[in-house]
Amino acid sequence: MEKIGVFVTGGTFDKDYNLINGTLDFKQTHVPEMFKRGRSTLDIDIQVLMMMDSLEMDAEHRQYITDSCANSIYNYLIVTHGTDTMVHTAEVIAAAKIDKTIVLTGAMRPYKLGSSDGFFNLGSAVAFAQTLPSGVYIVMNGRYFHWENVRKNKASGIFEEMI
Amino acid sequence: MEKIGVFVTGGTFDKDYNLINGTLDFKQTHVPEMFKRGRSTLDIDIQVLMMMDSLEMDAEHRQYITDSCANSIYNYLIVTHGTDTMVHTAEVIAAAKIDKTIVLTGAMRPYKLGSSDGFFNLGSAVAFAQTLPSGVYIVMNGRYFHWENVRKNKASGIFEEMI
Amino acid sequence: MEKIGVFVTGGTFDKDYNLINGTLDFKQTHVPEMFKRGRSTLDIDIQVLMMMDSLEMDAEHRQYITDSCANSIYNYLIVTHGTDTMVHTAEVIAAAKIDKTIVLTGAMRPYKLGSSDGFFNLGSAVAFAQTLPSGVYIVMNGRYFHWENVRKNKASGIFEEMI
Amino acid sequence: MEKIGVFVTGGTFDKDYNLINGTLDFKQTHVPEMFKRGRSTLDIDIQVLMMMDSLEMDAEHRQYITDSCANSIYNYLIVTHGTDTMVHTAEVIAAAKIDKTIVLTGAMRPYKLGSSDGFFNLGSAVAFAQTLPSGVYIVMNGRYFHWENVRKNKASGIFEEMI
Repeated sequence: MEKIGVFVTGGTFDKDYNLINGTLDFKQTHVPEMFKRGRSTLDIDIQVLMMMDSLEMDAEHRQYITDSCANSIYNYLIVTHGTDTMVHTAEVIAAAKIDKTIVLTGAMRPYKLGSSDGFFNLGSAVAFAQTLPSGVYIVMNGRYFHWENVRKNKASGIFEEMI
Repeated sequence: MEKIGVFVTGGTFDKDYNLINGTLDFKQTHVPEMFKRGRSTLDIDIQVLMMMDSLEMDAEHRQYITDSCANSIYNYLIVTHGTDTMVHTAEVIAAAKIDKTIVLTGAMRPYKLGSSDGFFNLGSAVAFAQTLPSGVYIVMNGRYFHWENVRKNKASGIFEEMI
Repeated sequence: MEKIGVFVTGGTFDKDYNLINGTLDFKQTHVPEMFKRGRSTLDIDIQVLMMMDSLEMDAEHRQYITDSCANSIYNYLIVTHGTDTMVHTAEVIAAAKIDKTIVLTGAMRPYKLGSSDGFFNLGSAVAFAQTLPSGVYIVMNGRYFHWENVRKNKASGIFEEMI
Repeated sequence: MEKIGVFVTGGTFDKDYNLINGTLDFKQTHVPEMFKRGRSTLDIDIQVLMMMDSLEMDAEHRQYITDSCANSIYNYLIVTHGTDTMVHTAEVIAAAKIDKTIVLTGAMRPYKLGSSDGFFNLGSAVAFAQTLPSGVYIVMNGRYFHWENVRKNKASGIFEEMI
């Protein structure tokens, strides 16, 4: 069993309700407890790169994510990421032509808010990371998409192929 | 996108608490609502074959599951199943030498009881069903196992390779 | 058993995550499903007066809530309300000197977001509404407070007596 | 604010799913975490008397619960209890003619299994314990019942007055 590297960047996936000010904030990542709840016996290495809304990411953040993928000692990588700019980050990573299987995933509803799709998506992400050839992919809605042929439909919150 | 056939057989996955008599029973399957919550856009066809504890399955039940897989018009199949005899059913299906990708999955904790691993497993199952070559597999704990090289460790509730 | 009137005004109690724009919005009230989940056999009459954040309420909204309490045919009333201005609304209602038991309650975390205090508070509210003498009360944190001797501690999100 | 004594005896309230053998068992009580989630600021003292299904309680167990109520230094007591014999235990406690407000409560669905009524019932129980005069009561379904005028309808799982 190959080891899988997991890079956490935040996104809706990891937001939680802040009951003092009534907003959705980041505290700590829920990714480790998700693997535990999933009773995962995968050999994983989780690293938190940042905890932010993907709408607030800039070129420097994306460079850091890309460098982290390039420098990782693992060949199978999962990046948790906000859905709003997930496709853009995938493009930036792909431009670096890294010979690894890199899967970006996220959630439309925060894991901690109940009825989230995030746990299902994480289950899909680990499976696709173990089976897809080298490349950069987005995993959402039970499917995988090649980075160059996917967009988020902002009206429906669904990822879809462009052609 | 290839269509995926989903056969529901019950198992812990689909048990729920019966508050009148205090037992864990089957009512209706939760698999469709799980796909909905996962915001799946997969083209799936869900069919309930039976709703039972896998400890109560006999040869006839397994034959019915096997025949359903053989006769299915889909090449990618998921079978939800109790974990206690999941490996045995996988062996029976494998003996039929069906040229399809057949993934058995389940849960150690019922989906309706909170903190279940089932939603994660279903996410993995749909991904492995789309990517693994023809064969019979068990998908649990974030991993896939070939039917002939897996056992459930009854003490830990974990699936593991035999060699 | 006396009938209890329940007036819904929104508040954190009833907010839910809007996954298209990532904000916390109001759709429909969850109060009826909360009574059902609580297996309540109380004779209640639920009426939605408004669905709003209590920070956005103005004098007109509070007058409408007060009039609704005054005009109700029931002597035992529960008002679900945002916590930020709950005390202020209680003052306005109290000024109308209505000879009924009027209980305001709410939640610090939305009911639909998991781990909410709202369901516990509703359980307390129905009990206090049945047992306290005429007056205007706030029910939060397992306790009841007289309207003229309570404040929300904004730093801790806890209601406390002033003296 | 008077201090409230809470006696835990188990019951459906505190059962959880044992994923190794697929049964509903007792591990540790969830009552403290329920008070925390309810953001309770009540002054409470929780004591676990036993962790058992109320169908397995015998005269000795009921004597121990009764003695614990009689000997408690608090005048307001809550007893969490299985619903099947809750009325019988209430009768035994009442026979001891203890001059305190004693509220028995429980749940039809385990707190840990999701969609439980237990959290609502606990909210009601703390409120009734603070407001009802001395006596022995059962609190379920949003209501309180005098010990001598209540039965559990076994077909519906609802508590109801006998006359």
